[in-house]
Amino acid sequence: MKLYSNEISSASSRVRIALAIKGIAPEILSVSILGPDAENRQRDYLALNPQGLVPALLTENGTLITQSLSIVEYLDERFPQPPLLPADLEARAFTRTVALAIAAEIHALVPPRVAAQLGSLGLDANAIGDWNRHWIREGLGAVESLLNGRRSGRSGRSCQYVAGDTPTVGDLFLFPQAINAERAGLPLALWPNLAEVVNNLRAVPAFAENAPAPRR
Amino acid sequence: MKLYSNEISSASSRVRIALAIKGIAPEILSVSILGPDAENRQRDYLALNPQGLVPALLTENGTLITQSLSIVEYLDERFPQPPLLPADLEARAFTRTVALAIAAEIHALVPPRVAAQLGSLGLDANAIGDWNRHWIREGLGAVESLLNGRRSGRSGRSCQYVAGDTPTVGDLFLFPQAINAERAGLPLALWPNLAEVVNNLRAVPAFAENAPAPRR
Repeated sequence: MKLYSNEISSASSRVRIALAIKGIAPEILSVSILGPDAENRQRDYLALNPQGLVPALLTENGTLITQSLSIVEYLDERFPQPPLLPADLEARAFTRTVALAIAAEIHALVPPRVAAQLGSLGLDANAIGDWNRHWIREGLGAVESLLNGRRSGRSGRSCQYVAGDTPTVGDLFLFPQAINAERAGLPLALWPNLAEVVNNLRAVPAFAENAPAPRR
Repeated sequence: MKLYSNEISSASSRVRIALAIKGIAPEILSVSILGPDAENRQRDYLALNPQGLVPALLTENGTLITQSLSIVEYLDERFPQPPLLPADLEARAFTRTVALAIAAEIHALVPPRVAAQLGSLGLDANAIGDWNRHWIREGLGAVESLLNGRRSGRSGRSCQYVAGDTPTVGDLFLFPQAINAERAGLPLALWPNLAEVVNNLRAVPAFAENAPAPRR
């Protein structure tokens, strides 16, 4: 397997964390996604992946798998230990819901191509920054409500991570997004449950070592 | 189980199609998502689901599951027949990728709350319509590339639907989005593979009977 990735991409970070948890180390190829040389460096990659987005996983059969949650589910089905989904059906649904709330209600609204489209409508960098912070704030507020309703669970005790005492898919999505929220000037203290989960994840090497790099 | 749904919501349509394929008929409660009375009618629903979005599935245990893909995966795990995911791991990944490409790269950018935010930045209805068509065109173009690369498969023959000759999760997401693209003035003939799959799906009652209703 080969992973096409970018060090600043939070979607790539989710997959790198999953690989680290599974103890799998495919070749990782870095694809430029920003800056003036991105177009040239990407030409080979675009022949493989017309959308040019990362992450993408190339299997031994030559199949390219895109979309981070699809890659993570594939890895979890192919390499079941340690599992990235709980056993209980409702807990599985819950951690997937957290992942999707982040992917579809935050990350989807703030990638470079959306910023470019807003720029073409006349928004300046400050207005685009406000747009990004708006969706991060709204979206992490929704995740906080989800966590608040679930973390104490049947045992009466809060679990360490999104859906139990081992990290699951929701944690893979939450951690990089939380790091980016802090970089955008939004302190995690705004969302106490979420902040506690993220602080617990900072102590897990698979997470700490695969956080998205800051933009230079 | 109870499903909170709205007849015009394409995300609700995905779940209603899944339920019809599985032959399951939970109570369906309609939640207003547009129009001047939405806020009042939603008050009870907001107590249950602070985000107020649909669809949401309430289980017999009183657990509310949100995010359409999470609901669909839950239904498929709980009621395995007929399956909504193929058996082959790469085919499972592929149909999830199609679902996510639609959820995160099209639908996420065009819901009412995004239109409202664009309106607050000064965009008028025409400009918001252009924004919506831009993301539908980009996103369905990406789905067309995905289908083009996969549909002929190992047998050398095109499959009827997204990932085989029975509908899977990618079809649940493609069908409502394609119907909405046509309503936004984008003919499916722009994407021949996608158009063929959607035409095959129009002949499946679970799809035809659960398409999103037009906005009045």
